[in-house]
Amino acid sequence: MISYPALPIEELASELAEQQERYDAYKHLGLKLNMARGKPSPEQLDLSLPMLNAVPADGSQDMLHAGAADDLRNYGTPEGLPEMRAVLGAVMGVPAANVLAGGNSSLTWMHNLVSLAMTHGVLGSTPWAKLDEPPVFLCPVPGYDRHFAITEHFGITMVPVPLKEDGPDMDVVEQQVQSNAQVKGIWCVPRFSNPTGCVYSDEIVERFAALAPAAEDFRIYWDNAYVVHGLAADDASTKLRNIKEACEAAAHPNLWYQFTSTSKITFAGGGVAAFASSEENLASIKAAMGVQSIGPDKINQLRHVQFLPNLEAVNAHMTQQAALLEPKFAMVLRVLSEELGSAGIGAWTQPRGGYFITYTGAPNTARRIVGLAAKAGVVLTPAGAPFPYGNDPLDNVIRIAPSYPSVDELETATRIFAVCARIAELENRMEK
Amino acid sequence: MISYPALPIEELASELAEQQERYDAYKHLGLKLNMARGKPSPEQLDLSLPMLNAVPADGSQDMLHAGAADDLRNYGTPEGLPEMRAVLGAVMGVPAANVLAGGNSSLTWMHNLVSLAMTHGVLGSTPWAKLDEPPVFLCPVPGYDRHFAITEHFGITMVPVPLKEDGPDMDVVEQQVQSNAQVKGIWCVPRFSNPTGCVYSDEIVERFAALAPAAEDFRIYWDNAYVVHGLAADDASTKLRNIKEACEAAAHPNLWYQFTSTSKITFAGGGVAAFASSEENLASIKAAMGVQSIGPDKINQLRHVQFLPNLEAVNAHMTQQAALLEPKFAMVLRVLSEELGSAGIGAWTQPRGGYFITYTGAPNTARRIVGLAAKAGVVLTPAGAPFPYGNDPLDNVIRIAPSYPSVDELETATRIFAVCARIAELENRMEK
Repeated sequence: MISYPALPIEELASELAEQQERYDAYKHLGLKLNMARGKPSPEQLDLSLPMLNAVPADGSQDMLHAGAADDLRNYGTPEGLPEMRAVLGAVMGVPAANVLAGGNSSLTWMHNLVSLAMTHGVLGSTPWAKLDEPPVFLCPVPGYDRHFAITEHFGITMVPVPLKEDGPDMDVVEQQVQSNAQVKGIWCVPRFSNPTGCVYSDEIVERFAALAPAAEDFRIYWDNAYVVHGLAADDASTKLRNIKEACEAAAHPNLWYQFTSTSKITFAGGGVAAFASSEENLASIKAAMGVQSIGPDKINQLRHVQFLPNLEAVNAHMTQQAALLEPKFAMVLRVLSEELGSAGIGAWTQPRGGYFITYTGAPNTARRIVGLAAKAGVVLTPAGAPFPYGNDPLDNVIRIAPSYPSVDELETATRIFAVCARIAELENRMEK
Repeated sequence: MISYPALPIEELASELAEQQERYDAYKHLGLKLNMARGKPSPEQLDLSLPMLNAVPADGSQDMLHAGAADDLRNYGTPEGLPEMRAVLGAVMGVPAANVLAGGNSSLTWMHNLVSLAMTHGVLGSTPWAKLDEPPVFLCPVPGYDRHFAITEHFGITMVPVPLKEDGPDMDVVEQQVQSNAQVKGIWCVPRFSNPTGCVYSDEIVERFAALAPAAEDFRIYWDNAYVVHGLAADDASTKLRNIKEACEAAAHPNLWYQFTSTSKITFAGGGVAAFASSEENLASIKAAMGVQSIGPDKINQLRHVQFLPNLEAVNAHMTQQAALLEPKFAMVLRVLSEELGSAGIGAWTQPRGGYFITYTGAPNTARRIVGLAAKAGVVLTPAGAPFPYGNDPLDNVIRIAPSYPSVDELETATRIFAVCARIAELENRMEK
């Protein structure tokens, strides 16, 4: 295998011609492959089909508390079904009392909390819409485009912070949060981060909990979307320090907002999302929520707790999901290693869970790779998406989502990706 | 039966003593009855139990489009299931293209649209939070407390407008909307209004559509919560003019926001809510919605369209609901007539649909009646609730919700209500 860094300048053109030939051959296949979004595969979704029968019409009367004051078919119980709060609390590592179980989307929780802060502030602070200058959110990068879309929507200034292998660069976070009262939040995916797959270390979580923000209404937006989404069971190396316990130990009990959902446990879009925080935060948020809704869909929550009654059941279910996902990650990593590793091109993360792999190439190659791949029938997440305002300053980061295609499709898609990466790398060197 | 208006002053005390005796007898029964909230009864909810089996685990693969690009178990389809948009569109009298089918709560739609207007304006107008003076909403009274809670939550000034038997006083509405650019909306429940049960006449709907608002971002918030909730089938007298068609005929296509839900068709809290408006309004709102959510729970929407595939099925289902509700309204009206009609006390609406009856007594009696009833075990909607800021200026309006209790319970509860109304009326006259 040719090592590109060692390739003499005069051989670049012939190597490019060779890769171009491979590329054209793939292009003629007229494939349609997609590694763009973190969607569960049909086989993963099949695992939750039995849940559809979990609240049957016949014999459901007791389950539904039919005719009782808390009839689950009727209005009420705005905090969500107690059993659902308990299960999702166990998933997040917090007691049911600190959990609200809501609708189908944790993203909606995040949006609504930012929206509420814009119009009403946080625990009595000035509404952010009334501030003289726009509020600021810190955005570990690469990060999740839908987080950034929320803050951009509300005109919140986004400041990127480097994400390292053990979490965000806390020197930057501490400096920003503790010196600037405009800084109101930070977006975090602490376990199997989207898109790098890193897990925040205990030390990083402790440093988060120890933050002494200049702004009283600063909160950590702890999006634990992949909290039970390890690729290997009992993987001690990916254990996440409990944010609630860490904040309480640091005497900052109100500092954290935690989110999760069953979107990637049961059905994506047909699941149950939860929000957890301190009792003081929750009391204030519940009051506002009472204006917005009479309560969540408790029947879907009942369906969930019948199917996944406790953390053990969730973990057993996730082990089945991991068995479907692990070979996909392995295939992408194998092909990247075969195609690019030996050639000395790029670098990529090797996540132990979550939904994504992050590829980092030479500067000014990401857009080119994504464009080439699209023309060869492989849809990738748009270059720039993992950065605020879609702006990847080095244009060299690409998010790869291996969950949806089959293993065979992934092999082909990743080979095409690799050929595109080679072409972009060669073009890049030839321009110099 | 004694006519109170004809009762000589010297007989008031003995009549009061007699009613007090009846009241004490009821009180000693230690009853627990509730005519406070518009909740469907267990029997109504039972009618929708078959829906729980509508998407069974076995054999659901085709229904769910399992494995297809639009797999209903996966992310996507933010506008909602096309079939659900069609059914709820038919319910509202608008094409599916004008409908978004969302989560479980039409109240959430209303809240979110007001919230969005606060932070982002309406179709490019100034965000309401940036206005020098707070925006104004017109509130036909008596009206729905949860509407008023939304506008109060956002600091929007609420101006009451009298609600007559054929709809709001349009002279007031026209004067306010057309002269004051701060007026941004009006809350309407046009068919079987909450709480009077009135249906807006064609002429009133036409006058709404013909409004030429001073504010470009004024919208009619048309909460069609009871659109298919008549107590008698094919009741021509309660037909509602189509707001979309009326607005289009008046060349004001963007003037209307329409809402409905299946909360009082299938399961309250476990249903599907919809929002309808012009294509221009929808395009703008969909863009903002895309930031808030990846899409609604399409599986619950599928369950609904399997159970209620078209308007005919909805109407057939609602006929069964009406058969349960009609005797309850009849009982309350019968007892009110027996107890109060002959005594010349108060007045009440005689709705042909919806969930409520409105009682209007002598000034300064509503709080007293609600307080007396509570002590005798009958919970009523708090006096003042049907008014902005909970302020009933005459303190004489009470909302009665007959849907939840049994017919027997309603007879007792209404007799207790009537005794309380007599006592309040007598006390009132003795004070003069």
